[in-house]
Amino acid sequence: MRDWELRVDEIPDPVPGPGQALTKVIACGICGSDLHLLRHGRQQLELAAELDDGQPPDPLRPVAFVPERDVVMGHEFCCEVVELGPGCANLAAGDIVVSLPVAFDAEGLHGVGFSNRYSGGYAELMVVNELMAIKVPTGLSPRLAALTEPLAVGVHAVAKSGIQSGDAALVIGLGPVGLAVIAELRMRGIGPIVGADFSPKRRDLAARLGADEVVDPAVERAVDAWRRVDGTRPLVIFEAVGVPGMIDQAMRMAPKGTRILVVGACMQPDTFHPMIGIGRELSIQFVLGYEPHEFGGALTAIADGRVDLDPWLTGSVDVEGIPQAFVDLDHPDAHAKILVEPT
Amino acid sequence: MRDWELRVDEIPDPVPGPGQALTKVIACGICGSDLHLLRHGRQQLELAAELDDGQPPDPLRPVAFVPERDVVMGHEFCCEVVELGPGCANLAAGDIVVSLPVAFDAEGLHGVGFSNRYSGGYAELMVVNELMAIKVPTGLSPRLAALTEPLAVGVHAVAKSGIQSGDAALVIGLGPVGLAVIAELRMRGIGPIVGADFSPKRRDLAARLGADEVVDPAVERAVDAWRRVDGTRPLVIFEAVGVPGMIDQAMRMAPKGTRILVVGACMQPDTFHPMIGIGRELSIQFVLGYEPHEFGGALTAIADGRVDLDPWLTGSVDVEGIPQAFVDLDHPDAHAKILVEPT
Repeated sequence: MRDWELRVDEIPDPVPGPGQALTKVIACGICGSDLHLLRHGRQQLELAAELDDGQPPDPLRPVAFVPERDVVMGHEFCCEVVELGPGCANLAAGDIVVSLPVAFDAEGLHGVGFSNRYSGGYAELMVVNELMAIKVPTGLSPRLAALTEPLAVGVHAVAKSGIQSGDAALVIGLGPVGLAVIAELRMRGIGPIVGADFSPKRRDLAARLGADEVVDPAVERAVDAWRRVDGTRPLVIFEAVGVPGMIDQAMRMAPKGTRILVVGACMQPDTFHPMIGIGRELSIQFVLGYEPHEFGGALTAIADGRVDLDPWLTGSVDVEGIPQAFVDLDHPDAHAKILVEPT
Repeated sequence: MRDWELRVDEIPDPVPGPGQALTKVIACGICGSDLHLLRHGRQQLELAAELDDGQPPDPLRPVAFVPERDVVMGHEFCCEVVELGPGCANLAAGDIVVSLPVAFDAEGLHGVGFSNRYSGGYAELMVVNELMAIKVPTGLSPRLAALTEPLAVGVHAVAKSGIQSGDAALVIGLGPVGLAVIAELRMRGIGPIVGADFSPKRRDLAARLGADEVVDPAVERAVDAWRRVDGTRPLVIFEAVGVPGMIDQAMRMAPKGTRILVVGACMQPDTFHPMIGIGRELSIQFVLGYEPHEFGGALTAIADGRVDLDPWLTGSVDVEGIPQAFVDLDHPDAHAKILVEPT
């Protein structure tokens, strides 16, 4: 990406610094936030600048990228080590690794895939910090390992929700984030899990990943589906759509005392009715990303076969195919996760 | 109140039913929600009907009042038992009591002060259920006992916040709800407590009730005042203003991971930026009312002298004086709590 437009281009090979490894990308998922960045990135940067007004500086905030210069996106990657920079002690050429999409050097932290300096996984070659890399257990396909990052988003959202055995879950929006939440809820033995999405394909995927009931909101309100199959357990609602009006909608359907987890990223200002929240003593927890241990836990869960994410993988493209994949991902019924497999 | 207008009028003496006592009101606080009801009640009822769409019936919801018939407001009362209905076993004439503002009979629950059937404390006589009444400990002035209800609102909000020793608190809006929150925070030993309000009188009251630092938001941002006196502890923000835009403002100033407690009742639709919540993983907990044990605890705290609410009482009127008191309470610098003392 340069100037908020996707470009397929040649760039110089990156050079690993101290403690870093040069790797060859095997597979990298295309994330909704990459589509978001292209479409809303400009406003996002403006809004972020405005909203940060008065916040103290955060030394751990990733270095901002300049949109007029190249940004190679891709933060859901699995790659193979090809060359070690100075001082690496734990990796070797040939190792298959995943990594939190964060690189660091003397300049600070960098968001891999959102950086002018560190290319993400839509490139053929990329640099990872040895300390951030986790070796993929033997026998696990790199294609599935590349789903560690999006699964970690679900692991984190579920952890933040405080949901526990005996609670029920309603997941609104069955895109990758909603699917990751369902996979983690299922691994934790939560039930019933009710998923809602207009797309039949996504509903089918949700059922395969562990939803007990899926519903088309055009036919039945999500909360009515939950009432039909349960209706008595404490309910946690995961809002994974991320467009204006969804938080208000979740609040309107929420029973008294419900926790609403906002995992969908709504870029625009949004309207809601505080009186609904007050009358029912609702809580709204916003979530973002994951902790390193949740990232590692997601990889282990995939490797141990505790979750089968294979249905999630619906397409594969090479680097030249990325622009078309971005177009295809705009149609929710066509795809769930498309992997970039550069070579 | 009738037809959304305050009226001073003669009404028939109420008759206590089984398990109920007829009481003489000694003191009853005027609450902001009574002013709200007069001003926004009509829209509130319409909104409530719209927003309840699809919610299952709740047998414990108080019976709705008809605004075209008399509603005697007043839900922060302390009164003296004058006559017992059939079957009362625990009260006696002369007992001084407070009560949760809830009455019940064969028809269901009734919100005392928001009911056509059960007059609130702006009347000379009112009926309370024996099971709801708590005797005021000997020696405690009924004027202070009448503050049990508004203090309970603060007790509940602080309990819901999950704030604990080592956290800091920022209270935005120092009306009765904000003051009650500060009093409870102080009783729990939380500190520092920073309070923000444009009114010098309210800031002074907050300081007397236990705020460690008070700030005029016209001079210094509330969160900057907290940074000046602390800035490192986990922060809980209590939004006790309740007008559109305040939740967004609280979110903008909130450091990462902050819990925001919404204790101010904003009747209108409101606008906020979900991206701020997501970027900082904020949580918003809406709160309303209190549990019976919190109500009882508030009375005990006042009786034991763990909190001195005397500064809170800034005025007293008889029944004829209520309309003027409602006018006076519109000026935040004139009054904190005005008691109605009917006789």
